[in-house]
Amino acid sequence: MTLPRIGVFDSGVGGLTVLKAMAEQIPAHYLYFGDTARLPYGTKSADTVARYAIGAARFLEAQNIDLLVIACNTATALALPQITQAARVPVIGVVEPGVAMAAEVSQSRSAIVIATEATVSSHAYRDALHQHGLTAYEKACPLFVPLVEEGWIEHPVTEQVARIYLSEAMAASSDTADVLLLACTHYPLIASLLRRITPEHVKIVDSAESTARVVRKRLLEDTTRIEARPSSNPNAALAEHRTFRFFVTDSVDKFKRLATRFLGRQVDHVEHVDLGG
Amino acid sequence: MTLPRIGVFDSGVGGLTVLKAMAEQIPAHYLYFGDTARLPYGTKSADTVARYAIGAARFLEAQNIDLLVIACNTATALALPQITQAARVPVIGVVEPGVAMAAEVSQSRSAIVIATEATVSSHAYRDALHQHGLTAYEKACPLFVPLVEEGWIEHPVTEQVARIYLSEAMAASSDTADVLLLACTHYPLIASLLRRITPEHVKIVDSAESTARVVRKRLLEDTTRIEARPSSNPNAALAEHRTFRFFVTDSVDKFKRLATRFLGRQVDHVEHVDLGG
Repeated sequence: MTLPRIGVFDSGVGGLTVLKAMAEQIPAHYLYFGDTARLPYGTKSADTVARYAIGAARFLEAQNIDLLVIACNTATALALPQITQAARVPVIGVVEPGVAMAAEVSQSRSAIVIATEATVSSHAYRDALHQHGLTAYEKACPLFVPLVEEGWIEHPVTEQVARIYLSEAMAASSDTADVLLLACTHYPLIASLLRRITPEHVKIVDSAESTARVVRKRLLEDTTRIEARPSSNPNAALAEHRTFRFFVTDSVDKFKRLATRFLGRQVDHVEHVDLGG
Repeated sequence: MTLPRIGVFDSGVGGLTVLKAMAEQIPAHYLYFGDTARLPYGTKSADTVARYAIGAARFLEAQNIDLLVIACNTATALALPQITQAARVPVIGVVEPGVAMAAEVSQSRSAIVIATEATVSSHAYRDALHQHGLTAYEKACPLFVPLVEEGWIEHPVTEQVARIYLSEAMAASSDTADVLLLACTHYPLIASLLRRITPEHVKIVDSAESTARVVRKRLLEDTTRIEARPSSNPNAALAEHRTFRFFVTDSVDKFKRLATRFLGRQVDHVEHVDLGG
């Protein structure tokens, strides 16, 4: 059986949690593209973000991918339709899977969304939740990304910060929400910590995990098409195998250090690419 | 007397602490340029940073400035010579003033430099301190900027983080340092907190404050030249007056909110400019 080739795109390292969740569920060749030289996307216009993401899509398509995952909340929120239209392979974004899962598990029809300031300002999650009939309270948690990148995953400071953010979010949502949606790809790294301090009746939905499920479902539907793709050596790749390639536009060293932490496995080989301005 | 016109350049809001320190010492017309659409500079190449800074210098020169302050550690560390060469007015960077002050007050000839990861990686402060005969221990404190931008100035979380960073820095410097150099323009906002938890024998040198002193000295030397500049209404500007204009390349609203906090005065009017790619 030929393994599918999955392209994963993010502005930085956050999308690695989506890659990790997929790798746990789906045997595949993974090609990860981190546009680290041009992050953060959160302050850029929709057109600029679309242009960058489409450039990355072209690069990954040239590596023969079967499917492209936009593992970046900003790119998904601002430019998913443009990317989908420009791409030659199916595209899956990171917003709708988490929202659909939240809608599936919520009984009170009310969710708290925690995310970066840029994602909250886009209101992409609020709007998508509305479409599923849920009210949403969005809370920006700007300290979580730097805390995760500092490596303070199980750390008293991170717990204290999380308690402050969560109590503000719960109070503002009048305690009606029964779902906490982790709408930033960095947050799965502190999911255990968040679980510990979140009231028991509140379910935690992780958009990385939810996206992995949607990708798996999509690949099972598309099996015929993907297996039909010619391979020079179809028997070499066993179903239980996963392979990884990493491409970044900025410093390879910083990416390696963070990637090893995010993936929970040593990342030694990262390739630098330059897509220009 | 005609007030001098001082251009202040930074990639974002941090340089506002330099502006504040100057405004407390120097009556002047201040023109602040925050290249917020293109921050952070820390991940960009020296040539790119030089190009951006020179673009901003040209814009400020068109507003008739007498002096340009590069209130940005990254731009100073990476591109001060290029900016100085390209500019038509005198240019003062933010590294050398703090280093000179540290060299003036240190008796042990050893300093701790706290800064962002990008500034630490550039080793600009270490190299400049070496030139003054001081050994330097550099400590990256990546959580301070997001804590300050979150507004957690006098906050138990910030104090806890600061205690961790400082104890690591003191230990690594073998407790020989008698100067703590605040080498990030965001840090003056937590100077009181840092003073409270830093050993008494360690002097705190603030590069914003040090830069303001150097600018003041330079202007006093240049008084003749500046007073000679023609003014349509020389008597209108009184010596005790300061005026401010703010130009940013990205969201005006976020800048206004942060600027009001950084300057300790209401900032209502911010102009958006687009310098292109």
